[in-house]
Amino acid sequence: MSSRSTDASVIEELFTAALAGERRPLARLLSHIERGGAAAQQIGKLAFPHAGSGYTVGITGAPGAGKSTLTSALVSQVRSDGLPAAVLAIDPSSPYTGGAILGDRVRMQDHALDPEVFIRSMATRGHLGGLALAAPAAVRMLEAAGRPWVLLETVGVGQVEVEIVGAADTTVVVVNPGWGDAVQANKAGLMEIADIFVINKSDRAGAENTKSDLEHMLDLSGLGHDGRWRPPIVSTVAHVPSGVDTMWAAIKEHRTFITDNGDLEQRRIDRADEELERIVRARIDAQVRARRDTPEFVAAHAEVLARRLDPWEAAEQLLGPD
Amino acid sequence: MSSRSTDASVIEELFTAALAGERRPLARLLSHIERGGAAAQQIGKLAFPHAGSGYTVGITGAPGAGKSTLTSALVSQVRSDGLPAAVLAIDPSSPYTGGAILGDRVRMQDHALDPEVFIRSMATRGHLGGLALAAPAAVRMLEAAGRPWVLLETVGVGQVEVEIVGAADTTVVVVNPGWGDAVQANKAGLMEIADIFVINKSDRAGAENTKSDLEHMLDLSGLGHDGRWRPPIVSTVAHVPSGVDTMWAAIKEHRTFITDNGDLEQRRIDRADEELERIVRARIDAQVRARRDTPEFVAAHAEVLARRLDPWEAAEQLLGPD
Repeated sequence: MSSRSTDASVIEELFTAALAGERRPLARLLSHIERGGAAAQQIGKLAFPHAGSGYTVGITGAPGAGKSTLTSALVSQVRSDGLPAAVLAIDPSSPYTGGAILGDRVRMQDHALDPEVFIRSMATRGHLGGLALAAPAAVRMLEAAGRPWVLLETVGVGQVEVEIVGAADTTVVVVNPGWGDAVQANKAGLMEIADIFVINKSDRAGAENTKSDLEHMLDLSGLGHDGRWRPPIVSTVAHVPSGVDTMWAAIKEHRTFITDNGDLEQRRIDRADEELERIVRARIDAQVRARRDTPEFVAAHAEVLARRLDPWEAAEQLLGPD
Repeated sequence: MSSRSTDASVIEELFTAALAGERRPLARLLSHIERGGAAAQQIGKLAFPHAGSGYTVGITGAPGAGKSTLTSALVSQVRSDGLPAAVLAIDPSSPYTGGAILGDRVRMQDHALDPEVFIRSMATRGHLGGLALAAPAAVRMLEAAGRPWVLLETVGVGQVEVEIVGAADTTVVVVNPGWGDAVQANKAGLMEIADIFVINKSDRAGAENTKSDLEHMLDLSGLGHDGRWRPPIVSTVAHVPSGVDTMWAAIKEHRTFITDNGDLEQRRIDRADEELERIVRARIDAQVRARRDTPEFVAAHAEVLARRLDPWEAAEQLLGPD
């Protein structure tokens, strides 16, 4: 089923139902966003005026760091404050699944019976811009549907995942005890996006060393001076859970900090700018691809490959005079 | 002086003179190519039918490896075969200079009195696509002007430099004795583009270890099997010069090898394809930038930053409906 075949009025009905708190219509709308196309854009436009009041927490780290367990424990914290929660699990390595992947069911276990917890995986790829375009639109839809806290969890630390999660309001980087982890965090660019470090599985050997490694890196980074936030380092054992309340407190503290000093507003402005840039690029890519498929350009391309035609002239045939 | 202010008939006159072997007109044409714009495109079109008969050797490696001295010694080898030579020194780290940078004068010393040696630096940046677009056009102009051997020398091993030099017909990667160099070559992506390795300053300690490191990496790469070329490792002391004749022989051997097995033809087809792709991207970037400057889009952009307008709607205002 192509999203383009979905009637605009059907989308509107789903949207109204999702805003009234219904879960299945919300799930269907997120599937459309995941697929991209005209329905996704319609949903984006509908959701936009209702979005912006929520808060997004990104949770990233190497595979096996315990991010899912930590996210699940964090959902319990949000719920203990009496608020609804949504989890968006980002997995660019999985093929498109329409949303219902095994991971969801595993993640659901702790919160399966709680109607105020909405958990969803996004594994889109192949369509334009992929997850980097779909994720912010999905977050807005979740906000519009009355989820004041959206947790963006990544499966790994690939480029797309870091990009997406780094665009959250507060970003939590999860590492495990072990000498290499702090270094890895630095290498993968996680150091730059971390607002809070969590050493999960902190009951294992080496937790203290990992903490001092991270502190040392933070000292070198100069963060915490001149009124800037210094990422705290929280130790957790997610499956107990232990330390997750401290992590939740750190998230709320960071939220207050960046709300008060204006960083939150600036982050969101920068993010809107980046999103627009990304959308524009994706659409231009699509336009170029379309022009490339014309018989004229296919012929010109063959002439270039045969080195009978100057590539500059071929570009002119594709795009018109400069 | 903008290149656009140069009359098309002036370019034609310069081109005719350059084809007749005059050096100053050739230098002026290369300055126009460096600057980009309409004159550069005109030169590209004029040169294209006359180009393609030359052979390009890329010489790259870390700063201080002795590439300039090696290139100068290689020019002497080309000259001893009775052929004219051209050197294009690529330096993306320098600001645009119009071509006459200090490095040229230093490089010229050994060949300053030889009219059959043409040496030129390209340090353009700032204009669209920069050196990656200008370099292949400059090579074609040099070929058209009767230079059967063009040596592309880079100053460092930045991404642009590796990209440009990797598009040569034969690529020489220069390292120095010392344990880290072979590893560095691998990290910087040089391993992938090397057709010949040169250990320059091979009279220094550690030359044998560097050679066995490189041999080991080549063993792991599987090159040399199934009729594929295995990059030879040549030891040189460029300032003597010692070993440069062996390097020159290796270059000619590689040329024969890839000519005979069809790789040269395929490389050039791939390169034409990449160049077209790069030109198309650069021109589209320019078109988007132009549209971005319209008052309508500036206004829409401000609305997005104020989060009063959906970024998807703004993209539509910029680019039209999808």
